[in-house]
Amino acid sequence: MSAAPKEFLDYVDAHKDAFIKRLSDAIAIPSVSGDASYRKHVHEMGHFVQRQLEAVGVATKLVPLGPQELDGQTVELPPVVFGKLGEDKNKKTVLIYAHYDVQPALLSDGWTHDPFVLTHDKETDRLYGRGSTDDKGPLLGWINVLEAHKTLGIELPVNLRVCFEGMEESGSEGLDDLIKAEAGPGKFFDGVDCVCISDNYWLNDVTPCLTYGLRGISYFKVTISGPAKDLHSGLFGNCVHEPMTDLFHVFSKLVTPQGKILIPGLNELVDELTPEERERYERMDYSIDDINESVGASIAISDDKAEVLMGKMRYPSLSIHGIEGAFSAAGAKTVIPAKISGKFSIRLVPSMTPENVDSLVIQYLESEFAKLNTKSKLTVENLHGGKPYLADPNHWNFVAAAKATQAIYGKQPDLTREGGSIPVTLTFADALGVNVLLLPMGRGSDGAHSTNEKLDLSNYINGTKVLGTYLHEIAKITK
Amino acid sequence: MSAAPKEFLDYVDAHKDAFIKRLSDAIAIPSVSGDASYRKHVHEMGHFVQRQLEAVGVATKLVPLGPQELDGQTVELPPVVFGKLGEDKNKKTVLIYAHYDVQPALLSDGWTHDPFVLTHDKETDRLYGRGSTDDKGPLLGWINVLEAHKTLGIELPVNLRVCFEGMEESGSEGLDDLIKAEAGPGKFFDGVDCVCISDNYWLNDVTPCLTYGLRGISYFKVTISGPAKDLHSGLFGNCVHEPMTDLFHVFSKLVTPQGKILIPGLNELVDELTPEERERYERMDYSIDDINESVGASIAISDDKAEVLMGKMRYPSLSIHGIEGAFSAAGAKTVIPAKISGKFSIRLVPSMTPENVDSLVIQYLESEFAKLNTKSKLTVENLHGGKPYLADPNHWNFVAAAKATQAIYGKQPDLTREGGSIPVTLTFADALGVNVLLLPMGRGSDGAHSTNEKLDLSNYINGTKVLGTYLHEIAKITK
Repeated sequence: MSAAPKEFLDYVDAHKDAFIKRLSDAIAIPSVSGDASYRKHVHEMGHFVQRQLEAVGVATKLVPLGPQELDGQTVELPPVVFGKLGEDKNKKTVLIYAHYDVQPALLSDGWTHDPFVLTHDKETDRLYGRGSTDDKGPLLGWINVLEAHKTLGIELPVNLRVCFEGMEESGSEGLDDLIKAEAGPGKFFDGVDCVCISDNYWLNDVTPCLTYGLRGISYFKVTISGPAKDLHSGLFGNCVHEPMTDLFHVFSKLVTPQGKILIPGLNELVDELTPEERERYERMDYSIDDINESVGASIAISDDKAEVLMGKMRYPSLSIHGIEGAFSAAGAKTVIPAKISGKFSIRLVPSMTPENVDSLVIQYLESEFAKLNTKSKLTVENLHGGKPYLADPNHWNFVAAAKATQAIYGKQPDLTREGGSIPVTLTFADALGVNVLLLPMGRGSDGAHSTNEKLDLSNYINGTKVLGTYLHEIAKITK
Repeated sequence: MSAAPKEFLDYVDAHKDAFIKRLSDAIAIPSVSGDASYRKHVHEMGHFVQRQLEAVGVATKLVPLGPQELDGQTVELPPVVFGKLGEDKNKKTVLIYAHYDVQPALLSDGWTHDPFVLTHDKETDRLYGRGSTDDKGPLLGWINVLEAHKTLGIELPVNLRVCFEGMEESGSEGLDDLIKAEAGPGKFFDGVDCVCISDNYWLNDVTPCLTYGLRGISYFKVTISGPAKDLHSGLFGNCVHEPMTDLFHVFSKLVTPQGKILIPGLNELVDELTPEERERYERMDYSIDDINESVGASIAISDDKAEVLMGKMRYPSLSIHGIEGAFSAAGAKTVIPAKISGKFSIRLVPSMTPENVDSLVIQYLESEFAKLNTKSKLTVENLHGGKPYLADPNHWNFVAAAKATQAIYGKQPDLTREGGSIPVTLTFADALGVNVLLLPMGRGSDGAHSTNEKLDLSNYINGTKVLGTYLHEIAKITK
């Protein structure tokens, strides 16, 4: 039994075509945030979003973020759209986040149709277009919900706060500072009880999920230098210490081919697996075949599905990305590179933090390097870091989303964690001190950031229903 | 006591200025073989060399080598200059090799003077210019020798065969086939008793050397592939096998940071060190400081001079050159590269050959890779190979050169081996089946291939004397 009124659900079904038209209008605005020549369209999209919100009863404000240097010119950052609906002290206040900018897309990249013309494939009932799933579909899902409530005269069961940005695909420039500045008594985010972000995807194409964790990261650049300039291996091979040899020795001590991190102390920082958690991974609607299919080869690290999913979601990983300064072209150059930088990163999970990880990593690299007994020099830099995020999936915010999903899809959602990071999640959690839920609308196969990005019509429509139902479930649960 | 007549030595001293003028005329022709727009000057230089040889009594022939594709156009390869002087059955027949082309050089590369104008620094008595030491000085040294003999009416004590090429700096295109075609009864190289190549350098700036060995090479490209495309380390780290991790593990098993090759069977192929040889390295006029100075850092692999010199000259080496296909730019990309190729080469010494080395290397790589228990795929390619060269330094060809050096410089020359390769050496040795001597004219600091290439005037003049005396020593020893 859905907590949402039947009229609401019926309205969504009845207005399918209008909702498609709304998405079509949004897709037509090429709001590519990473290209200065498209910046005017990002601003245009911000105004479009503001008008849509105002039309469904939300009081809005465009927050300017100042100028930005991009592609050799100074451009104005697109505004954050703040919105407010309801001030009822007896209701929970839900902050919703989405973004209205998109990744670049050109027909010549391999799109079947113009990426900025919404193309409805009637056979598969899929909606193709840049931004369909990332993130215009989910953003407009909220507008659809509010339109239905306004038109039907149904009172919204929660207070709503809106934060829609236009720079997510380009590092969310300016947003972190704004969130921190607007947290606290009397500020815009004052009174927010929970956050809902709809900007990720189901694990597969059939089972909805709620996401309660994200891995953090620590990125290292390890530089080893020897001779003052590159040497000829004929003249100096087996005569001097070679930085490349040293690097291969040191990096071979970082991680096993099975993904086990060899740096002492790191695995001990990982929170212990609970039986409840293990069971969550066992239950997940995902198979080894799904993993192999998504990477295009049978290379899963284990035959145990839960192990592989935990490797990706709840355990750290260490990946070597490349070497800067070595010979990297085609052909057969006989160089001894003078100075090289190997790069690797570690994905962090609770209770790892950049702080407690970095010192262990640097100490280990230095001690392994010392064992080599080489005359090369080692320096280690940390290029960037970010904490992991973990929400309580038993919080009413998640329970409401799970009940909404069950009501609409007739299925218990998987409780997943993401291997990568969505930095704004952590910013909200830290700045507001509330539970942050990731409630995806699209499927694993949607191809966000890729060519022929799509959103299944059923996900758009059912996703709209889930978002609305979720608000009613919150009101019901927390009453 | 020199075997050469005193008049010859006096003539060389007396004609210093004319010899400098000859070198100056040669330097003025920018015979850069690697650039199509300079090709006409290479041909011009070939004709210059022919005229010089004819003027001192050598019967010459320009051997065309056909067309070549270079910089998008078809150009004519510069001719090989063949020369013949003497057919006396009672004399030894000496084949001399040099090259008349040069490396590119532009004033803007950092030259102090125009690289194609011979600049005589009177304070240091050094002759600056592209080709001064590599290889126009040595080539003209032979012309100087022949001019002196002709003018003085001194009969040449040996028959001479000349092979001067114009493509050495660009892979000696066409020369190998010509040498093979002209070896054998009735052909141009028929009757050659020994070869003298003057195209390398002293180990340092004070002690002459003779070179009797060159290392060979085997170059490997090791490709490891996993996923069908590059992956995001957040999404797939610790979920699939990563080719980079595998490569670091395998390559860490190739060689120690001290230069010891770890591939079983390889070191066993190296000829045993004789006490006589060891003593040769102990005696060499070279120090650890010289090595550190030449590489610009204190990174010599040992404190034992002989060990370091043997590492470079008479033992194999293994150098890792780089990785193709990994992230190699600046910055912090979080990619799991899908397919990468690590490259390394082994410098070979007798009795290693590409044939007996390659199978051991490939077998070892495959067995080490199998131990990793990864699902990535491994392929090993051999990109190119070349045998090492070793002449008998007790052969009369070397003894004559040593006596000539002792007579002119008052010093026993060091007997050295080169860490790199000069392929034509091996071609002559294999095709003609005779002893090949490398008799350098210039010093270690000459900067062949570099900016401000120079030849010390004393090396040019004394080097000319050594070349002439060497011919007389041959006649005397082999009488």
